[in-house]
Amino acid sequence: MSFNEDQLHRLFAERFQPRADMLGPGDDCAILINPPQQFCISCDQLISGVHFDEHASARQIAEKLIGRSLSDLAAAGASPYSCTLTCAFPEDYSAEQSFELCNELISVAAWHQLAIIGGDCSSAKQLVLSCTVMGCANGKVPGRNSAKVGGQIYVSRALGGAVHSGRHLSPTPELALGKLLVEKCSPQAMIDLSDGLDNDLHRILRASNVGARVDVDLLPLNKGCDWQQGVSEGEDYGLLIVLDEAVALTIDDVLKEDSHRLYRIGEITTSAKLDYQQNSNSVILDTRPFSYS
Amino acid sequence: MSFNEDQLHRLFAERFQPRADMLGPGDDCAILINPPQQFCISCDQLISGVHFDEHASARQIAEKLIGRSLSDLAAAGASPYSCTLTCAFPEDYSAEQSFELCNELISVAAWHQLAIIGGDCSSAKQLVLSCTVMGCANGKVPGRNSAKVGGQIYVSRALGGAVHSGRHLSPTPELALGKLLVEKCSPQAMIDLSDGLDNDLHRILRASNVGARVDVDLLPLNKGCDWQQGVSEGEDYGLLIVLDEAVALTIDDVLKEDSHRLYRIGEITTSAKLDYQQNSNSVILDTRPFSYS
Repeated sequence: MSFNEDQLHRLFAERFQPRADMLGPGDDCAILINPPQQFCISCDQLISGVHFDEHASARQIAEKLIGRSLSDLAAAGASPYSCTLTCAFPEDYSAEQSFELCNELISVAAWHQLAIIGGDCSSAKQLVLSCTVMGCANGKVPGRNSAKVGGQIYVSRALGGAVHSGRHLSPTPELALGKLLVEKCSPQAMIDLSDGLDNDLHRILRASNVGARVDVDLLPLNKGCDWQQGVSEGEDYGLLIVLDEAVALTIDDVLKEDSHRLYRIGEITTSAKLDYQQNSNSVILDTRPFSYS
Repeated sequence: MSFNEDQLHRLFAERFQPRADMLGPGDDCAILINPPQQFCISCDQLISGVHFDEHASARQIAEKLIGRSLSDLAAAGASPYSCTLTCAFPEDYSAEQSFELCNELISVAAWHQLAIIGGDCSSAKQLVLSCTVMGCANGKVPGRNSAKVGGQIYVSRALGGAVHSGRHLSPTPELALGKLLVEKCSPQAMIDLSDGLDNDLHRILRASNVGARVDVDLLPLNKGCDWQQGVSEGEDYGLLIVLDEAVALTIDDVLKEDSHRLYRIGEITTSAKLDYQQNSNSVILDTRPFSYS
């Protein structure tokens, strides 16, 4: 191996902040004492050449791995609690590079108050990271299967261009917004925008057995992106939300106090499909849906 | 990608057994309702060319990934509860191969009553699997840092030859024994034998700040292995246990009812080192400690 695995284990154990409700790295298992009653769990991978290229810095790799994992918690309105990490380092990775990456992972996790309670290091042909993130829910978790006809569809930030701009390397998970929405607005459905609005909205529609109309002129778009790029490119890591009509009437006021805002882009329909419209006419999405490969 | 990721996600969601205390795959997060009060968590990786070669079957890969993860729970005396899995498939893996492996993972997990609550699929240059396993503790979890001078050292099965014999591909985690020991014998320390007795006993000695004497003639050895191979080769996946002297006097009777047995191999000493002895003389271990690479 190109690094000293026992030293890395010691690094994680030494940097673990002791807590009464958590026994962290050091034994075969970590132990959580009385974990949250609604305990949210999600996992994600980050792979060199797939999710980032050789120009990405250790900081960016750490921010992307942990940021996109936490984005799943944000979609559940949950707060970060703990995580496990597995790292497979390429043979040509020096011990210094392994230590730098692990230090950045520790630093980014600490910034999000996310305790790293366990991990494993090994070697592979390319850098492969995996993160299982655990969170504490703050109310009824919305999920994807309860969007109802008439529900108003929102996104939390501008869409498109995340990969081209490099923004995908430093995702900012909408943890505060997700928590606020669950506590105050009981969303019908919520999902994080990782694979592009078209893919992710389709997931809600399939799970809820409904359709949707999206007005492409209402889509908030990043600079240089047309609506087709906005809905088909991935890695925006904002939230896609469906709210009751009654809640929608007051949403701007609810969010204003906390300096959040949402963009209404359409509504849930009885149709079995996702209908993009411009000036009340259907328009066709002809871009291939987003995929990493 | 060489497989249909959405279809794989559906496979895991469809095969999930609904439970009142668990919302499994399908949303951004799984949710555990009132998880165990002492919740044990561990993670492990399995990488093609590192932990198995191209001759391993899908069944063996699944048994090794889940078996070695559960072996960490066994060392905590914990029972299987839930797990997350991430899979990176090589480009030349067919959709059929991906489905076969996922089906085997589902089948092996089900056999252990381990609910797969979440996962992620991607692609890589070689097969890389990661598993975070969660368990329910059944008493005070022993750990590694409380071995005391005079403590009696035991192993739960014969040592050595696991890789050469192919046994490493189908590890049988000592879940029932681990649980029984925690419930009835309050071990001073317990660890699973994944990296060879020499490595794993050293971990207990370092964490507990003690030494040990091991009588090499007491070591249970697999056929064809001498004592040096028995203590230095890895992947045995039995348990290494330190018991109070008083408990040691009755351990055979305690375990007999449940058809378990342990092998006493030595005791904890004030010395700062691990001393192998034969006929009361020190003997030197000259084999290189086990490492996957």
